[in-house]
Amino acid sequence: MQQLLVWQNGQVSTNCSLEALPGILADPQALVWLDLLLEDELQPYQDMLSSKFKLSRLTIETLNEARERARLVEQTGYFHLVVHGLAFDVENIEARTPKLDIIFGHNFLISIHREAMDWLASLLDEAHDESEEHLMSRGAARLLHAILDTQVDSYFPVLDVLDDMSDDLEDKAVTDASNEVQARIFRTKKALARMRRVISPQVEVMNSLITRTGDFIPTSAEPYFADVHDHLVRTFEVLDSYRDLMSGLLDVYLTTVSNRLNVIMKQLTIIATIFMPITFITGVFGQNFAHSPQVETDKGYNFWIVLLVMVLITLAQIWYFKRRKWI
Amino acid sequence: MQQLLVWQNGQVSTNCSLEALPGILADPQALVWLDLLLEDELQPYQDMLSSKFKLSRLTIETLNEARERARLVEQTGYFHLVVHGLAFDVENIEARTPKLDIIFGHNFLISIHREAMDWLASLLDEAHDESEEHLMSRGAARLLHAILDTQVDSYFPVLDVLDDMSDDLEDKAVTDASNEVQARIFRTKKALARMRRVISPQVEVMNSLITRTGDFIPTSAEPYFADVHDHLVRTFEVLDSYRDLMSGLLDVYLTTVSNRLNVIMKQLTIIATIFMPITFITGVFGQNFAHSPQVETDKGYNFWIVLLVMVLITLAQIWYFKRRKWI
Amino acid sequence: MQQLLVWQNGQVSTNCSLEALPGILADPQALVWLDLLLEDELQPYQDMLSSKFKLSRLTIETLNEARERARLVEQTGYFHLVVHGLAFDVENIEARTPKLDIIFGHNFLISIHREAMDWLASLLDEAHDESEEHLMSRGAARLLHAILDTQVDSYFPVLDVLDDMSDDLEDKAVTDASNEVQARIFRTKKALARMRRVISPQVEVMNSLITRTGDFIPTSAEPYFADVHDHLVRTFEVLDSYRDLMSGLLDVYLTTVSNRLNVIMKQLTIIATIFMPITFITGVFGQNFAHSPQVETDKGYNFWIVLLVMVLITLAQIWYFKRRKWI
Amino acid sequence: MQQLLVWQNGQVSTNCSLEALPGILADPQALVWLDLLLEDELQPYQDMLSSKFKLSRLTIETLNEARERARLVEQTGYFHLVVHGLAFDVENIEARTPKLDIIFGHNFLISIHREAMDWLASLLDEAHDESEEHLMSRGAARLLHAILDTQVDSYFPVLDVLDDMSDDLEDKAVTDASNEVQARIFRTKKALARMRRVISPQVEVMNSLITRTGDFIPTSAEPYFADVHDHLVRTFEVLDSYRDLMSGLLDVYLTTVSNRLNVIMKQLTIIATIFMPITFITGVFGQNFAHSPQVETDKGYNFWIVLLVMVLITLAQIWYFKRRKWI
Amino acid sequence: MQQLLVWQNGQVSTNCSLEALPGILADPQALVWLDLLLEDELQPYQDMLSSKFKLSRLTIETLNEARERARLVEQTGYFHLVVHGLAFDVENIEARTPKLDIIFGHNFLISIHREAMDWLASLLDEAHDESEEHLMSRGAARLLHAILDTQVDSYFPVLDVLDDMSDDLEDKAVTDASNEVQARIFRTKKALARMRRVISPQVEVMNSLITRTGDFIPTSAEPYFADVHDHLVRTFEVLDSYRDLMSGLLDVYLTTVSNRLNVIMKQLTIIATIFMPITFITGVFGQNFAHSPQVETDKGYNFWIVLLVMVLITLAQIWYFKRRKWI
Ligand SMILES: [Mg+2]
Ligand SMILES: [Mg+2]
Ligand SMILES: [Mg+2]
Ligand SMILES: [Mg+2]
Ligand SMILES: [Mg+2]
Ligand SMILES: [Mg+2]
Ligand SMILES: [Mg+2]
Ligand SMILES: [Mg+2]
Ligand SMILES: [Mg+2]
Ligand SMILES: [Mg+2]
Ligand SMILES: [Mg+2]
Ligand SMILES: [Mg+2]
Ligand SMILES: [Mg+2]
Ligand SMILES: [Mg+2]
Ligand SMILES: [Mg+2]
Ligand SMILES: [Mg+2]
Ligand SMILES: [Mg+2]
Ligand SMILES: [Mg+2]
Ligand SMILES: [Mg+2]
Ligand SMILES: [Mg+2]
Ligand SMILES: [Mg+2]
Ligand SMILES: [Mg+2]
Ligand SMILES: [Mg+2]
Ligand SMILES: [Mg+2]
Ligand SMILES: [Mg+2]
Ligand SMILES: [Mg+2]
Ligand SMILES: [Mg+2]
Ligand SMILES: [Mg+2]
Ligand SMILES: [Mg+2]
Ligand SMILES: [Mg+2]
Ligand SMILES: [Mg+2]
Repeated sequence: MQQLLVWQNGQVSTNCSLEALPGILADPQALVWLDLLLEDELQPYQDMLSSKFKLSRLTIETLNEARERARLVEQTGYFHLVVHGLAFDVENIEARTPKLDIIFGHNFLISIHREAMDWLASLLDEAHDESEEHLMSRGAARLLHAILDTQVDSYFPVLDVLDDMSDDLEDKAVTDASNEVQARIFRTKKALARMRRVISPQVEVMNSLITRTGDFIPTSAEPYFADVHDHLVRTFEVLDSYRDLMSGLLDVYLTTVSNRLNVIMKQLTIIATIFMPITFITGVFGQNFAHSPQVETDKGYNFWIVLLVMVLITLAQIWYFKRRKWI
Repeated sequence: MQQLLVWQNGQVSTNCSLEALPGILADPQALVWLDLLLEDELQPYQDMLSSKFKLSRLTIETLNEARERARLVEQTGYFHLVVHGLAFDVENIEARTPKLDIIFGHNFLISIHREAMDWLASLLDEAHDESEEHLMSRGAARLLHAILDTQVDSYFPVLDVLDDMSDDLEDKAVTDASNEVQARIFRTKKALARMRRVISPQVEVMNSLITRTGDFIPTSAEPYFADVHDHLVRTFEVLDSYRDLMSGLLDVYLTTVSNRLNVIMKQLTIIATIFMPITFITGVFGQNFAHSPQVETDKGYNFWIVLLVMVLITLAQIWYFKRRKWI
Repeated sequence: MQQLLVWQNGQVSTNCSLEALPGILADPQALVWLDLLLEDELQPYQDMLSSKFKLSRLTIETLNEARERARLVEQTGYFHLVVHGLAFDVENIEARTPKLDIIFGHNFLISIHREAMDWLASLLDEAHDESEEHLMSRGAARLLHAILDTQVDSYFPVLDVLDDMSDDLEDKAVTDASNEVQARIFRTKKALARMRRVISPQVEVMNSLITRTGDFIPTSAEPYFADVHDHLVRTFEVLDSYRDLMSGLLDVYLTTVSNRLNVIMKQLTIIATIFMPITFITGVFGQNFAHSPQVETDKGYNFWIVLLVMVLITLAQIWYFKRRKWI
Repeated sequence: MQQLLVWQNGQVSTNCSLEALPGILADPQALVWLDLLLEDELQPYQDMLSSKFKLSRLTIETLNEARERARLVEQTGYFHLVVHGLAFDVENIEARTPKLDIIFGHNFLISIHREAMDWLASLLDEAHDESEEHLMSRGAARLLHAILDTQVDSYFPVLDVLDDMSDDLEDKAVTDASNEVQARIFRTKKALARMRRVISPQVEVMNSLITRTGDFIPTSAEPYFADVHDHLVRTFEVLDSYRDLMSGLLDVYLTTVSNRLNVIMKQLTIIATIFMPITFITGVFGQNFAHSPQVETDKGYNFWIVLLVMVLITLAQIWYFKRRKWI
Repeated sequence: MQQLLVWQNGQVSTNCSLEALPGILADPQALVWLDLLLEDELQPYQDMLSSKFKLSRLTIETLNEARERARLVEQTGYFHLVVHGLAFDVENIEARTPKLDIIFGHNFLISIHREAMDWLASLLDEAHDESEEHLMSRGAARLLHAILDTQVDSYFPVLDVLDDMSDDLEDKAVTDASNEVQARIFRTKKALARMRRVISPQVEVMNSLITRTGDFIPTSAEPYFADVHDHLVRTFEVLDSYRDLMSGLLDVYLTTVSNRLNVIMKQLTIIATIFMPITFITGVFGQNFAHSPQVETDKGYNFWIVLLVMVLITLAQIWYFKRRKWI
C-alpha cells in the first residue's frame, strides 16, 4: 500500500500522481512524504524509487533485507535511517521488532515498512487533515522528528505491559512451584534480549542523527532530537533493569522450589520420626518367647498401658516439633 | 502551591506579584526564585511560564511528563535541568524518585515539582528570612548550587536507612529460612535498581553543568559544583555496592535453606538408622516356626537379653553419630 | 591448489602463467586475483609470493601461522588482512573458524586459506565467467568488498542453524532431565565462545579497513564496507545473545532437575505417610498379651473393622494429598 | 595533636610557633609540614588553617566531612588531596579506610587525619631527625611523594593478610560444612567491596596528580608518582581478584554442603535398602495362617535357614553397594 | 649469573670485561647485551648498574621489587620495561609468573630476572654463535623484538597445556562426583586469574612500546612489535575464554552432583515404594484376632495365595517404574 502526501504552497495534497514527483522535488519549498507498506517484497516499488528518488544500489539492497541493525547512512542527496518498532505479545511472551526504513532529503521523506504500525497510521491520518500547524509545514527535519518522537512514544505502552507482567510473575514466583513460572521467565528474558538488541544501536543512531547530518537538522531543532534520544536511553535502561528483575525473579522462584522441598522432607521426617519408635514398640511386644513379661504380668491392662505409652511418646514428639517450629 | 521570592537591592521580598516580574527580570542585578509545587497538572501555570519566562514548547512538554531522565538542556535564554529526589519507604521496601525540574537563567531560577520535598521547603524557609549572607545574595549560580548541594545531602540519610536495613537482613538471612527474607532481598534489589537508574544520569548531568553552561557558573564556583558531583558519584558507588551486598545476602540465605535441609535429612537418617535394625530384630523373633530357638531356649531371660542387645546397638549407633558430629 | 585470474583490457583471462605476472602487475589498469588453497604448508608458494609480490618476512611468517587474530597490517605496497570463516558442526556441536589471509594492493589481491570454502569457490566460479558487470571490472577495492560481503553473508546460515538448535534444546531442557542436555549446553557455549573470539576482532578490523587504508577504498565505496561492518556487528550481537540464551537454558534445565527431585520426594513421602500409620496399626494388633482387647471382644468382625479403619485412614490421607495438590 | 616541622636554611626545626608561620611561608626556599591528628572535630584548628594558610570555605567543609571520595581539588594557592588508608581487622573481618586530607602548596604541606596511622608516624619521626638526605630537603613535591609512596606501601601487608586468610578459608570451605564459612566469605566480600570503593577513585586521583598539578611536580619527579600510581593499580587488581576468589570459594563451600547431603542420603538409602527386604521376610513368616509352610515343614532348621537367607541377601547388597562405590 | 655479549664491528665477543664497557657504550654502532640471573638479591650488581649504565634510583628500586606490574618507564638515556613470563605447574595446578626487567637504550640492553627461563637461555645461546644474520646485527630495537617475540611464543605451550587439562576436567566433571573435581576447577580459576592479571597490563605496555618510544623503534619495525602485541591479545583472550570455560565446567559438575542425588533418591523411593505395601500386608495377616479370616478359611493355600498377591503387586510396581523410566 502506498500513500503520497505533498505539501506545497501552504497546502497538503493527497492525490498527487507519481508522475508529477520530479517537478515537485525540484521545488525546495515543497515537502513530499511517501509511505510504503510492503506486502512482502520491495520489488513493485524498486524501479520507481531508483528513478524518482535516485536511491543507490546499496540503499535498495538494504531495503530488501528483512532484518537490519539500526543505522544512519549518508548517500548522495539523501540519508537512509533504519529504526525498529517494538511490540510485545503477552500471550506467547514474544517480542516483535518490525523494521522501519526512513529515507529523507531536504524536501522529501520516504517511510518503508513490512508491518502496519498503528502510531504511523495515525500520524499519516493527521497529515491528511488540514490543520493550523500542519505536520509538514515546518520542513523535512520537523516531519522526521514527529515520526521518531511518535515511534519512541509508542515504546512506553510496551514497557507498561512488561511492568504489569513482571508484577504478575513476581506473585506467581512466590506461590507457584510449577515449571511454568520458570518457562515464562525464560521467554521474557529472551524477548527482552531481542528488544535490547534492537534499541541499543538505535540509541547511537539517534545521537549520530544530530551530529552527522550537517545542516539538515537546524540548531534550533537539535534539542527536540536530543529529547527523542533521551527517551530512547530511558527505554534501554528500563529494558535493562527488567533483565535484572527477571534474574531476581528466577532466584525467588528457585527458592520457592527449594523451600517446597524442605516442606516435603519435613513432612516425611515428621511421619518417620513419629511412627518408627512406636512401631518398634509393637514389634517388641509382638515377639514370641516362652516367657514374655508383657504376657505373664498381664492383668488385662497391659495392652492399654503400652498404648498409653505410645500415645505419650507421640505427644512428646509433636510437642518437640512444635517447639522447633516444624509444625 | 506557588512561592515567589525576589532579591533586589540587597533585600528579599516575598510578596511580589507576578505582574511585576517583567520589570524585575529586566534588572540584571535582581534574582527571582519561583517555586511551583504542582497539585497534579502543570496546566494552571503553563501560560504564565510561557509568557513571563519565554519557555519553549519543548520545555513545557518536558515539564508535563511525570517521568524523565536527568538531563541538562540549553534553550534560548535559559537552561533546563532535570534531577530527582530519593526517598525510601522501609515498610514496603519501595523507592520513590520524585522529579525536580529546575529552569535557570542569569537572574531567575524556577523549581517545579509534583511532590513536597522537606529539604527544599527548609531552603525556601531559609530564603524567606533576612540573614547576613542571604542565599540569593550571590547570584543564580550560587542559588543553584545551594539547591543541588542540599538535594544531594538529602540522599545520605536514605543511604543510612539502607545500611541499617541491610544489617538487619544480614542477621535474618542466617537465622531465618522463611521465604520472607528472600522476598525482602528481591524488593530491596528492585528499589536499588530504581535509585541507580535515577542517580546514574544525574552524575553525568552534574558534570555537564560545569562544562556546558559557559560563563553561567563562574570559575571560582566550579569546585563547589565539582563537590556536588563527587557526592553524587559516592552515592552511586554506595548504591552499587549495596546491590552486590544483596546478591551476597541471597547466597547466605540460600545456604541457610540448604543447611536446614541437611539438618532435616540428618534427623530422618538418624531415626531410620537407629530404628530399622532393631525393628528388624523384633521381626526376627516375631516369626512363627515349629521350632524357634528363642522360644525353646527361653529360661525367662531371653526377652530381656534381646532388649539389652537392642539397647546396646542403639547406644553404639548414638556413639557413632556423635563421633561423626551428626548429633 | 592455485587459481590465477587476470582482468586486463576489459577481459578476464584464467590461463595466465606466473611468469607473465610482473608485466601485468606493472599495468595499473589490470587486476590480478590469485587464490591459494594450501594442502598443508605455505612452502611451495613461499618463494613465488616473496619474489613476484614482494611480500615482507613478517607477512610470510603470519601466513605460516595456522591460528591468528583478525588484523589489518599495512606493508610497503600492500595490505595484509586476516579474517575467519565460520562453520558449525551440529553433530558434534563444534565450531570451526578457518583462517583466510587476504593480501591486496592497488591492482592485485591474493586469497590464501587452508580449508576449502564454498562461498569463496562460487565467487571464483563467478569470476571465471564473462558477465556484463564482471566482479573484477571495478577494481581491487570492489573485489575486496565482494569477498568480504560474501563471507559475512555466509555467517547467517550458521546463525540460523544455531537458532534451530537452541529451539530444540529449549524443548529438551524442560522435558529431559538426563545429563545429555547439560553436556550439549556446555558444548554450545564453548563453540559460541570460539566464534565470538574470532568475530570480535573482525569487527574492529572492518572498521580500520575504512579508516586506515587511505585512498585504497574510494569514498563512494565506503558505505559498502560500512554495510559489511554492520553485518559483522549484528553477527556478534546475535552470538552474544545466544550465549545469554544458553545460560538461561541451563537455568531451565537445572529447575527441571530440581522439580524432578521434588516429584521423587513427594512420591516417597506419600508412600511413607500412607503406609507408616496403617502398618503401625497392624503392629498394635500383632502384639502378644495375655489379654488383648481385639481378641477378647472378637465376634468375627474385628478383623474387618480394623481393615475398614485402615481403609478410611488411607482415603483420608489421599483426600489430604489431593487438597494440597500433591497428587 | 599537632606537629609542626619547618625546613629552612638546610635545617629542620620542630619547635617553631604558629605565630612565626607567615614569615616562614613567605620564604620560597622554606618548607613547612604541619600534621594534625584530630581528636574528633576540626574546630580547634579551623581558624588557624583559614587565617595562616588561606584555606577556602569549600576546603574547610570537606575537611569537616568524615567520609569523602578520593579527589584532587585545585584552589587558589594550594591543592587539596583526599586519600584513604587501608586497614583490615582479621578477627571481625572488617575493613577500615581512614581518610587522610593532604593540603599542599609550593612550600607547605598539611596532613590532617582522625586516626593515628603507623606509617605516617614513622615518617614524621624520620623527619624529626637530622639526616644526610632529609625528607624535606628536596621540596614539597618530593615530600608529597614520600607520603603517598609510604602510604601505598602500607597497603601491601593488608593484601598479605587477606592472602593468608583466603588460604585458610580455602581449606575450611572443603572440610567444614558449617554456616560459619559462608558468613566469613560474606564478610570478606563486604570488606573487599569497601576497600575497592576507596582505592578505585584513588587510582584516578594519582593520575590527575601528575597531569593536573602543572609545574608543582617537576618532570623529573613524574616517574616517581607514576610508580605510586602503578602500585595503586596493582592493589586494585589484587583486591579485584580476591573478590573473584571469594565467589569461587563460595562455590566450593556450596559443593561441600551438597556433597554432604549426598553422603547423608546415601547412608539413609543404604540402611533402608538393606533392612526393608529382610524386615519384609520376617513379616512374611510372622503371619498367622492355619497352615504355614515354614511351620509345617520345620525340622528345627527353618529359623536358621531363613536367617541365613537374610544374611546372604544382606551380603549381596553390601557387595552391590561396594561395586557402585557407595560404601 | 652474568652474561655479557658485545656486538662490535660485525662480530660478537663474549669475553669482554665490565671495565671495557664505557668505551664500548661510547660507540653508537656497538650493541651490548647484559643478562643477569639473580641468585636472590640485586645487591652484587647494583653499583655496577648505577655507575656503568647510569640507572636512576627509581629504576634500581623497581629492580629490587620482586613483584611489579608490567610497565614501560622512560628515564634519561634509557627505557625500563617490566614484563612477565608464564609457567604452569600441572601437578599442583599453580601458575608462576616470573618477572623480567628489560632496560634498553640505543646501543645496550640489560635483561634481569630471578628465575632461569628456557626461551631466554636458548636466545642467549643463539647469540653466542656467529651466524649469517646475527641477532644483534640489526640494533637494539630488533634485539628487543627478538626477546619479546620469543617470550610471547613461550606462552602458547602453556595455553596448550591448559587446553589438555580442561579437556581432561570436562570428562571428569561428567563422570566423577567427588569433591576433587571442584577443587581442581577452583585452583585452575585461581591460576588463570593470576595469569590474566599479569598479561592484561602487558598488552597495554606492548602498545605504548610502539607509541611512546619515539625513534627508538623505527617505523619499518613497528609491524613486528604490533605482531607481538597481537599475540599478547590472543593470549589474553584465550585465558579469558578458559575462565568462562571453568565456570561452565563447574555448572556441569554441579549438575552431575545433583543428578547423583536424584539417582540416590530414586533408589530409596523405589525400595520404599516396593516394600512398604507388601510389608503392610504381612502386618495385616500377622495380627492376632479370635477370628482371623485367613486362618479360618485356610485350606493350606492361603500362605501361597498371599505370597502370590505380594509378588503380583511387586511386579506391577516394577512395571510402573519401568514405564516412568525410573529403572
Ligand atoms: Mg545490509
Ligand atoms: Mg539487528
Ligand atoms: Mg540477555
Ligand atoms: Mg548521546
Ligand atoms: Mg526522557
Ligand atoms: Mg538497573
Ligand atoms: Mg545483571
Ligand atoms: Mg521528553
Ligand atoms: Mg529514567
Ligand atoms: Mg566527572
Ligand atoms: Mg564527596
Ligand atoms: Mg563496590
Ligand atoms: Mg558487581
Ligand atoms: Mg604473528
Ligand atoms: Mg592474535
Ligand atoms: Mg583468537
Ligand atoms: Mg564502527
Ligand atoms: Mg546490517
Ligand atoms: Mg543482546
Ligand atoms: Mg564534599
Ligand atoms: Mg567513597
Ligand atoms: Mg594512569
Ligand atoms: Mg607496581
Ligand atoms: Mg582477576
Ligand atoms: Mg569471575
Ligand atoms: Mg615500584
Ligand atoms: Mg600485578
Ligand atoms: Mg593496541
Ligand atoms: Mg598474531
Ligand atoms: Mg569468551
Ligand atoms: Mg561472561
